Amino acid sequence: MSAPHAVPGCELCERDGGILIARNAQLRIIRAEDADHPAFYRVIWNAHVAEWTDLPPNDRSLIMQTVAKVETVLRQALQPTKVNLASLGNVVPHLHWHVIARFDWDARWPAPVWAPKSREVLRPAERLALGLEALDARVAQVL
Amino acid sequence: MSAPHAVPGCELCERDGGILIARNAQLRIIRAEDADHPAFYRVIWNAHVAEWTDLPPNDRSLIMQTVAKVETVLRQALQPTKVNLASLGNVVPHLHWHVIARFDWDARWPAPVWAPKSREVLRPAERLALGLEALDARVAQVL
Repeated sequence: MSAPHAVPGCELCERDGGILIARNAQLRIIRAEDADHPAFYRVIWNAHVAEWTDLPPNDRSLIMQTVAKVETVLRQALQPTKVNLASLGNVVPHLHWHVIARFDWDARWPAPVWAPKSREVLRPAERLALGLEALDARVAQVL
Repeated sequence: MSAPHAVPGCELCERDGGILIARNAQLRIIRAEDADHPAFYRVIWNAHVAEWTDLPPNDRSLIMQTVAKVETVLRQALQPTKVNLASLGNVVPHLHWHVIARFDWDARWPAPVWAPKSREVLRPAERLALGLEALDARVAQVL
């Protein structure tokens, strides 16, 4: 696609937006450093578009196929209670998909991660079936 | 696809799950009756699967193409500030995609609809550029 120019002041144009896991010409995968939800990745379109349907159909499919691959890695590695997927972008209107492994023991379960916390969970990353470094390495292989 | 049997007690197996807008063999579109976010639709897979990646790739694409069509109708009819898409299912683990038109005047903007309310907005449906009945009719045409 013809890449629009970076938008000054857009934090996903100017920075990776988290721990960079993998990148190709169209998109990148980062891990959000979320203290309560450790297995929280984002698939970010590199060029600045706001809405998923701003992409042409082939590119919509491409980003969703990457979302599916990340979801599959999380399911296989962690057996989460549920996977949560979302494209919101109200605060940062640069297309990014949240891919979050949720657990029935996590700090906001069963509410979405954007709801108020319902309990304190100490060192949630240590409860995962796979350490974050190994998980990142598996996620990186999807690109 | 081979349709799994309905799961007893699953509210999206047993009921439409909102105001039924359109339905085909694979999926249906409903409007959630959300008092604060009137232009809130869901695309629901008719058969009971929990995760998006429980579907084979062709069906994943089919439901996303329907999500894209609903998003496109909302954008064209309402010019929302942002569209929010999400597949969560923590409480009702039967695959459904939320498609929500968000506005900078709405009760939770810029937070997700699952966050605490930040203001009271009276009769938000009256602020839409198109009435809900006419909007429903346009959304129904995507199937």
